[in-house]
Amino acid sequence: MNPRPIVKLSHFLNSGNKLFQRGISTARQSYGAEGGRNSGRIFADYAIFKGKAALSVAPVLPSFSKTDSGYTKVDRRGVIMLTFRPAIGERKYDSEKKQLFALSVTEVGSFISLGPGDSCEFFHDPLMQSRDAGQVRKSLSIKPHTDGYFISLTVANNILKTNERLTVPVSTAEFAVMRAAFSFALPHIMGWAHSTNQVLDDNNVGRDSLKVHPQASSSSSEWDR
Amino acid sequence: MNPRPIVKLSHFLNSGNKLFQRGISTARQSYGAEGGRNSGRIFADYAIFKGKAALSVAPVLPSFSKTDSGYTKVDRRGVIMLTFRPAIGERKYDSEKKQLFALSVTEVGSFISLGPGDSCEFFHDPLMQSRDAGQVRKSLSIKPHTDGYFISLTVANNILKTNERLTVPVSTAEFAVMRAAFSFALPHIMGWAHSTNQVLDDNNVGRDSLKVHPQASSSSSEWDR
Amino acid sequence: MNPRPIVKLSHFLNSGNKLFQRGISTARQSYGAEGGRNSGRIFADYAIFKGKAALSVAPVLPSFSKTDSGYTKVDRRGVIMLTFRPAIGERKYDSEKKQLFALSVTEVGSFISLGPGDSCEFFHDPLMQSRDAGQVRKSLSIKPHTDGYFISLTVANNILKTNERLTVPVSTAEFAVMRAAFSFALPHIMGWAHSTNQVLDDNNVGRDSLKVHPQASSSSSEWDR
Amino acid sequence: MNPRPIVKLSHFLNSGNKLFQRGISTARQSYGAEGGRNSGRIFADYAIFKGKAALSVAPVLPSFSKTDSGYTKVDRRGVIMLTFRPAIGERKYDSEKKQLFALSVTEVGSFISLGPGDSCEFFHDPLMQSRDAGQVRKSLSIKPHTDGYFISLTVANNILKTNERLTVPVSTAEFAVMRAAFSFALPHIMGWAHSTNQVLDDNNVGRDSLKVHPQASSSSSEWDR
Repeated sequence: MNPRPIVKLSHFLNSGNKLFQRGISTARQSYGAEGGRNSGRIFADYAIFKGKAALSVAPVLPSFSKTDSGYTKVDRRGVIMLTFRPAIGERKYDSEKKQLFALSVTEVGSFISLGPGDSCEFFHDPLMQSRDAGQVRKSLSIKPHTDGYFISLTVANNILKTNERLTVPVSTAEFAVMRAAFSFALPHIMGWAHSTNQVLDDNNVGRDSLKVHPQASSSSSEWDR
Repeated sequence: MNPRPIVKLSHFLNSGNKLFQRGISTARQSYGAEGGRNSGRIFADYAIFKGKAALSVAPVLPSFSKTDSGYTKVDRRGVIMLTFRPAIGERKYDSEKKQLFALSVTEVGSFISLGPGDSCEFFHDPLMQSRDAGQVRKSLSIKPHTDGYFISLTVANNILKTNERLTVPVSTAEFAVMRAAFSFALPHIMGWAHSTNQVLDDNNVGRDSLKVHPQASSSSSEWDR
Repeated sequence: MNPRPIVKLSHFLNSGNKLFQRGISTARQSYGAEGGRNSGRIFADYAIFKGKAALSVAPVLPSFSKTDSGYTKVDRRGVIMLTFRPAIGERKYDSEKKQLFALSVTEVGSFISLGPGDSCEFFHDPLMQSRDAGQVRKSLSIKPHTDGYFISLTVANNILKTNERLTVPVSTAEFAVMRAAFSFALPHIMGWAHSTNQVLDDNNVGRDSLKVHPQASSSSSEWDR
Repeated sequence: MNPRPIVKLSHFLNSGNKLFQRGISTARQSYGAEGGRNSGRIFADYAIFKGKAALSVAPVLPSFSKTDSGYTKVDRRGVIMLTFRPAIGERKYDSEKKQLFALSVTEVGSFISLGPGDSCEFFHDPLMQSRDAGQVRKSLSIKPHTDGYFISLTVANNILKTNERLTVPVSTAEFAVMRAAFSFALPHIMGWAHSTNQVLDDNNVGRDSLKVHPQASSSSSEWDR
């Protein structure tokens, strides 16, 4: 009566697989800074304003859920949300034409491990789960230049017959800020900052009267080196 | 009457020695995400799903105990728990056949300091403290490939006459996530995040009326350089 | 009636652009350790005392504001405040002649990514927004020496006809402290430490009954690699 | 009546100068894990047990004081306390003969920036402020070996006519743990973790109604690049 616990992939909640991440950029759009349901949260974008476009980046925390067993688990991982806005005049940017790209945990891993001269590219299909899968393709490319990187977002929309490309030159210093900030944010969007931040209380602090730990009573040849 | 304070090893609570760590992988199995006694905790595994097996990793916090003197100390250090599950079909993984490996604080130190092209291997005897010591041998190996590392767990069980090997190819980006997450988790599983996170209150904030600190009244030749 | 959302630069609150940072060093002077309105805050300067001058560094947190929509956002980014004091005798420094320089988020990015042998220089105009723009020019230069860096602040004041230069030799160890401390402080002065430090409560923890996530039900060729 | 604010060195509370640190190793001995007045604190040593001696390391937080102006400042910086205990038998260590060495903030900076093959040495005079200055000399040396470092503490006591040397071979993995843990602890022993960890409340969150920031209304040639 107790069936063998075959685990289907869909039961895993925290996938590092690109498969999972593909559908995220759309799903997460409602989490952006403009989302109306985000009252109570703190917004702290890091924004880079350049001649042709502006790029702002901000962490989006994971969502959690309580299980029937009473503990809390990550329901959906967080992301680093990249928002591009095209320039439409001197120091004016068009929010209506903004384009989002949600870096998954693993893509953030790629980003922060980019060496000097390295480049990388990520592909997302925001409509992946729908019948319009493949109609919209987003790609984010990071390419080195003399002092820093070009970060470009291309959105090819077969339905609207549009193809947009927004590029922001990011200086070495700005990239260093991103790398440091993304590294800081990584354990938060993974949920590890939450899972390690348990308060000490009577439940997890036992009483101890110098008991001898069983694992300390054996001998080992490693000892003498 | 007050005997010389000969300290036996078994009195040290936080050993960095491999000796101590050997017996941990079994002892800590009850701490895994499926443990029934973990209500109230937050679970946030980072999971990597590949063709032959899945690997998920998560920090396990240290346990603490109160001494008779009234202060709190680490009773047992935390670990990074690695859980391997074999694939049994397309995107299906068998939790019944899962294998655990608990990386100790020092093994996490090895992991995060792996350079490109480096490899390492850890050996655990989960039955070390019992009369069946040596009957089960677990080894975790991390070996470089073109884009990342192969992480393999081998479990040789002389009692059941079994020898299992589960290998998960981990991409450079996924490894970067692990390295960053393990580095973040390290002070938490050591207990340093707890010991440094003391709240300021009247007990540790004194009153000061511009008193001259004694150690500042001396002269030094270092001063003039 | 709902006009196109043309975003002027002045509406962006968190600019990474040097433009924004130029006017900051003056504006932030009231935030220094001597500011009278800072009751309740904790001050923890890292100070380096050398023969000709002393340099102390400390983070200044961002300020936040509540919007009409009820959420909180960064109003003004934080900085790392550098304070130079000239020596006026053996181990005596003149606070009246102190000079401040507020490193912006992006300048901190430059600082922490300085390689061995690298140098950099930042320029601020503390009167930029006033009719005296250009009359006072501050520049901070960081130049390598045998064991560490020279950090120099030059303040050229056309109004007072003064030109001061304060230089502090910083050892490799002291620079390592700064780099580590600035890296730690960076997410705090950006506001990311605040935005990621959300408490879990009933608003952001849902109830979950093993629902299948839509993005997990698709197939992918990436799976089999 | 308001005299020129001549600042004597003794008024600076957070010196990065070695001068200050010299006298610390004694002064801080009462802060060690055995200190009776430390009730309420959490202890989490990282200990390395080797054939001839054991080394355990732990952070000691700074002390704070309230000024008359009502704010809190670092009164005395924290340290990383190193405790050496000689072996007196198989896996037995003599706490009575333990020797302490308190790494200052700047010495921690040296430690964490040690490259492969680098070595360093620190000198402390625990009796520096007393009439017995120079009678006891402690030196801590860190020297590379094939797999890691030798960490040696030498204590030369002219009064007792003793000269002790305790050496612990530290593996690369153990050193990586120390480096990561010390890097984590650095902002805490400096007090920066406290000064940046301010709670947001009505005092530091203003109300904002889309006010134009004055520093955003200027033009800049940097804009167009």
